[in-house]
Amino acid sequence: MNTKLSIEEVLTRGVEQVLPSQDGLAKLMAGQKIRLYLGIDPTGNQLHLGHAVVLRKMQQFVDLGHEVILLIGNGTVKIGDPSGRDKTRPMLTDEVIEENFQTWKDQASQVLDFSRVEVKRNADWMDDLDFTDMVKLMSKFTLQQLLERDMFQDRMKNNRPIFMHELIYPIMQGFDSVVMDVDLELGGNDQLFNMMVGRQLMKESRGKDKFVLAMRLLVGSDGRKMGKSLGNFISLTATPENMFGQIMASVDSVIPEYFRLLTDVPETEIESMEQAMAAGENPLAFKKRLAFVITSWLHGEPAAEAAREHFERTVQQKELPAEMPELAVPAGEMTLLDLVFLSGAVASRSKARRLIEQGGVELAGERLIDPQASVNPNSGDILRVGKRQYFRLR
Amino acid sequence: MNTKLSIEEVLTRGVEQVLPSQDGLAKLMAGQKIRLYLGIDPTGNQLHLGHAVVLRKMQQFVDLGHEVILLIGNGTVKIGDPSGRDKTRPMLTDEVIEENFQTWKDQASQVLDFSRVEVKRNADWMDDLDFTDMVKLMSKFTLQQLLERDMFQDRMKNNRPIFMHELIYPIMQGFDSVVMDVDLELGGNDQLFNMMVGRQLMKESRGKDKFVLAMRLLVGSDGRKMGKSLGNFISLTATPENMFGQIMASVDSVIPEYFRLLTDVPETEIESMEQAMAAGENPLAFKKRLAFVITSWLHGEPAAEAAREHFERTVQQKELPAEMPELAVPAGEMTLLDLVFLSGAVASRSKARRLIEQGGVELAGERLIDPQASVNPNSGDILRVGKRQYFRLR
Repeated sequence: MNTKLSIEEVLTRGVEQVLPSQDGLAKLMAGQKIRLYLGIDPTGNQLHLGHAVVLRKMQQFVDLGHEVILLIGNGTVKIGDPSGRDKTRPMLTDEVIEENFQTWKDQASQVLDFSRVEVKRNADWMDDLDFTDMVKLMSKFTLQQLLERDMFQDRMKNNRPIFMHELIYPIMQGFDSVVMDVDLELGGNDQLFNMMVGRQLMKESRGKDKFVLAMRLLVGSDGRKMGKSLGNFISLTATPENMFGQIMASVDSVIPEYFRLLTDVPETEIESMEQAMAAGENPLAFKKRLAFVITSWLHGEPAAEAAREHFERTVQQKELPAEMPELAVPAGEMTLLDLVFLSGAVASRSKARRLIEQGGVELAGERLIDPQASVNPNSGDILRVGKRQYFRLR
Repeated sequence: MNTKLSIEEVLTRGVEQVLPSQDGLAKLMAGQKIRLYLGIDPTGNQLHLGHAVVLRKMQQFVDLGHEVILLIGNGTVKIGDPSGRDKTRPMLTDEVIEENFQTWKDQASQVLDFSRVEVKRNADWMDDLDFTDMVKLMSKFTLQQLLERDMFQDRMKNNRPIFMHELIYPIMQGFDSVVMDVDLELGGNDQLFNMMVGRQLMKESRGKDKFVLAMRLLVGSDGRKMGKSLGNFISLTATPENMFGQIMASVDSVIPEYFRLLTDVPETEIESMEQAMAAGENPLAFKKRLAFVITSWLHGEPAAEAAREHFERTVQQKELPAEMPELAVPAGEMTLLDLVFLSGAVASRSKARRLIEQGGVELAGERLIDPQASVNPNSGDILRVGKRQYFRLR
């Protein structure tokens, strides 16, 4: 992201919509430094490429020299954004919220230059609100307006509870815009409703037009909508090897959109790739380029190169990696399950058992599928756990 | 209200329902002094006999020796109780609220012995609520629960706005019960929903059963539902003569219910009257008794007696009252409209005009219906304005 993009590129690439108008925002940005923000809920999410889309966009505004605020919703998180959820979330304690933000920041730092972003916390003003303030804020919105949200409509239709604190979430989020007096709010398209409530509140409170920029949502690596339960997202904390491998394992159809939302590869090149694939060309080279560009962006070029080599050796050429960790094994017999768990490559014994039963483990070149099989490995034997993890036993 | 009623009478007479059970409340009251409250919104209402019904019930609890709290909703009034309204109310300032309460108290003192009632104001705790408190309170209720209110249902059906602050009114009112830790809440049956929300909150917050006593609503003097725009209510501030006259002008069908809700006349006597009227007996005597008992209660017996005599003389016998105020009239000609307005018996010139045109004015025994008619009254002439107001001109 060292190349400085034009205002027009920033306002169009990966952008679902700019409200009330892209032209208006472009004019404003051409004439002055604007103040914009992205709000996040520190709810302990593992960040993935989907989050990176919006963070990238934010960094582009930083690069253009605008005043960029990252707002931690440590006040609104007490409510719990009901967006896209059909169940109510538990309230979080202050300690958990702060921990969650630190974890979040560690991950987001791969995309966002925190030295050039102002971090604010909305508890700083939410906690000052009293009963009268809350009543006044609420009096500016009708139930009918808030119920326009698809998600609330769905819950009503399916007789699922909407808790009253959830209903006011958009209002409270909107209040952030007013307090910070921003010119623009950034967010994923799933935040459009909340962002527009803030626009209305801004208009009423300050008589000012707040712009809203909604990003397209990244589709999951399997081509479906991204979802926690589907496991179809690629974590920012994935090692370079895993990240590269997971991108390579994505379905071909996502390649162009991933290029658009997650790289600076020019649109003309992306279109050429689309045409080539449509004409029957093997997408492998394009996908490897995508995996390399994204892994370079998040882990640096040397790590991306190593990851590419690793991928080519282990997956493409079915060769062993040049280097692999050693695993010290106690002398004598043990079960295969114990050995796999000992490797530390799986998080639990039950996961180890499942992996073995599914044929994901090889010892000394032989696939073993009985977790209780007794093994007595020799020093120098190779243990493979899953697709890409190798250990040299000693 | 000098006779001490039994617990059973207090819990049944005029009572629509006691929840969860009348027996349970009777047992509690027999064993201990209970704490109960009535909440009022100081919105500047003129009090009428409909309000007196609940205030009477409250005074009965005072007489039984229980701890009775009158709660001024100077906090909740900021929200505005949407009960029974299809429009949203404006927010009131603290000054207006305080004025309204003083006016309210002046009127309510006719029914309620304020020396034996504790007055509290819920702004004392509402104003201490912060954002987190509000969120926690709201999280205890779902939109679906609150939308069960008939009135909200009606608004939804008719596409009339429900403002968000209105929606939370029942929750905030319920919070009063929790803070005051009451055993019972009193109110009109139109407050049942709000009172039950308080019951739920009490159960969750203190694990305690709050009883709810809902009074029947007094029907208007014309037999229809009481309503401001219908003008079918009798103000507590009405002069004894007007009060007596207005009760006499009520439709016959309301007599038994007015006896039940506004007097201590025993149920057996009320039933006898009902039977007599059903058998064709002229209700006049019953109505005069009703007017006398109610006027005595609110203005004392001597005033009630004078009012009765006044009524009999002016309405029943069409005679002039024994005494009437003098009205000094400037010499020379004036319009009838000026004369009537000069009397001070009507609030505005437009009202004076309407009254004249409707045949409500007599001068020197002659009905005049032209407001612009030129008159030149003699000293000693009698001017009648409306049904019961007489002036001797000089």
